[in-house]
Amino acid sequence: MSTSVNHQVRLAARPVGEPKPSDWALVEEPVPTPADGQLVIKVSHISVDPAMRGWMDDRPSYLPPVGLNDVMRALGAGEVVASNHPKFPVGQHVTGMFGVQEYVVSDGTALIAVDPGAVPMPTYLAALGMTGMTAYFGFFDVGVPKPGDTVLVSGAAGAVGSLVGQLAKIHGCRAVGIAGGAEKCEWVRELGFDAALDYREPNLAGRIREATPDGVQVYFDNVGGEILDLALARLTVGARVVLCGAISQYNAREQIAGPKNYLSLLINRARMEGFIVTDFYDRYPEGAAAMAGWLREGKLQSREDVVGGSVADFPETLLKLFRGENIGKLVLKLT
Amino acid sequence: MSTSVNHQVRLAARPVGEPKPSDWALVEEPVPTPADGQLVIKVSHISVDPAMRGWMDDRPSYLPPVGLNDVMRALGAGEVVASNHPKFPVGQHVTGMFGVQEYVVSDGTALIAVDPGAVPMPTYLAALGMTGMTAYFGFFDVGVPKPGDTVLVSGAAGAVGSLVGQLAKIHGCRAVGIAGGAEKCEWVRELGFDAALDYREPNLAGRIREATPDGVQVYFDNVGGEILDLALARLTVGARVVLCGAISQYNAREQIAGPKNYLSLLINRARMEGFIVTDFYDRYPEGAAAMAGWLREGKLQSREDVVGGSVADFPETLLKLFRGENIGKLVLKLT
Repeated sequence: MSTSVNHQVRLAARPVGEPKPSDWALVEEPVPTPADGQLVIKVSHISVDPAMRGWMDDRPSYLPPVGLNDVMRALGAGEVVASNHPKFPVGQHVTGMFGVQEYVVSDGTALIAVDPGAVPMPTYLAALGMTGMTAYFGFFDVGVPKPGDTVLVSGAAGAVGSLVGQLAKIHGCRAVGIAGGAEKCEWVRELGFDAALDYREPNLAGRIREATPDGVQVYFDNVGGEILDLALARLTVGARVVLCGAISQYNAREQIAGPKNYLSLLINRARMEGFIVTDFYDRYPEGAAAMAGWLREGKLQSREDVVGGSVADFPETLLKLFRGENIGKLVLKLT
Repeated sequence: MSTSVNHQVRLAARPVGEPKPSDWALVEEPVPTPADGQLVIKVSHISVDPAMRGWMDDRPSYLPPVGLNDVMRALGAGEVVASNHPKFPVGQHVTGMFGVQEYVVSDGTALIAVDPGAVPMPTYLAALGMTGMTAYFGFFDVGVPKPGDTVLVSGAAGAVGSLVGQLAKIHGCRAVGIAGGAEKCEWVRELGFDAALDYREPNLAGRIREATPDGVQVYFDNVGGEILDLALARLTVGARVVLCGAISQYNAREQIAGPKNYLSLLINRARMEGFIVTDFYDRYPEGAAAMAGWLREGKLQSREDVVGGSVADFPETLLKLFRGENIGKLVLKLT
């Protein structure tokens, strides 16, 4: 290997509100050597996801919190640079849970072999990765859309939301996206959404009403907060609210705001349901095959917002998510 | 007929907050005469339900609001006193949507013939009426309970809640009830609930935790507000929250409080779902047969809190619900 140093970003302190520089520690370790049955991956791309904020808090959740002084948990893509593993030779490209670091040792568990000749590597972290599986299973299995349904999506210019709207169009639904700023909304319309609403402009409630004249049958929520309340007010009988995330609330220092319009669920015999994509792990091949097919056919676009830098740039890159600065899937490319 | 006057309670004004005397008008009308195909019912019992508060507001809901100056909508029980209808002769006892009045004319639509020799008339407004159907379909169809589940019920000494906990026990679940005051909690325990928690005592959160050591798989919510938040905090993976009502919020003058812990639904891949009992209308015979069977077998108790009086006592009787003064199903018996 060309370098003997593995730069890592470790969690130094539990953030209160938005993570600040002192919550992180940049650490150097020797590059690991693979034991028998192991391999070493040189990480080329780090997936930067809103869910990371939740992983940093010390509270019960679907995964244990990242330990203090542990390498920050992150999905990533890379290439095998040393191997004592029969299935993953040197030169093989892979994705997996690599952490925010330059090198990672693996025994092959939960490692996925990918082909950079088929699609660019960042796409394996976007439409063909966990992000794409989140959109696919969240939309189809939790949202249970029917052709003709109106599907409202918040965070529509984000990694998951941009895919969900496209899936809605593929499925014969009306897709209405909510995003922050004119540039994002323009892109959302380019993706084929029937309407894109800028939440930074006045009277979002009125514009949601206009864009959903027959109400909302599926609301796919990535943001929480006031937008969730506005969406609840548009539900029709039997509607489904898919809880994918609540990025507006992740850095809340106080208790978060609850959806004041939740009784719309009662009046409309509607349901609000959360999901965790890893519960669909056994069906990833189905989801990945479907998403890859639509990508090939040009029915689906995967856009990655690739930031070049080093692992030291991860803390600042993460904040782009909460400041709404990314369009599409945010990826840190290690250069 | 022995009297020619039909006393009615009409909605005079839309209440703000708790309904006050000036929101009602006591009106006298002649007792109606049945046309061909019609019958006249003398109302003996009026069902007093939390949902009535929602019917008084002028906002979109599952039923149109009660019109200003219209007779207040109410379920009731009574006896046919004049009939030109082939299926409902004089002397037949019936239940239906009769309104807060002494006499009502009907063409037989949605009228249910009942037998006061089988169970007392108030029971046809409780376990064997809409209340019982609400408990039955809300618990089994929306809650989807499995034997061994822990079922948490708020409003456990109320009309619906007291039945839901008993259904939970019949189904082999652990039933934990939340109610206000020692007397109610004692009765809830007598019904067979495994635990009854008084929300007026301190540290409800800690006592819920103790009473649900394996978490909550089904939460049946009749109250909303802080208790809903405490329940959300106890959900386990795949849990179901049944939204039946939110009596703590019905008289709110400001926007109601939303469930701050709603992201527990996401972390736990849980769902929160509303329902309206009339959607199960076609299956009432199934529900009524099941409930009647359990009543006969002594596995189920139907308790009615019968207040004697005239229709003029309805406004004050309704307030008992919001003040938590009823135990079991609140019924106004016209004496």
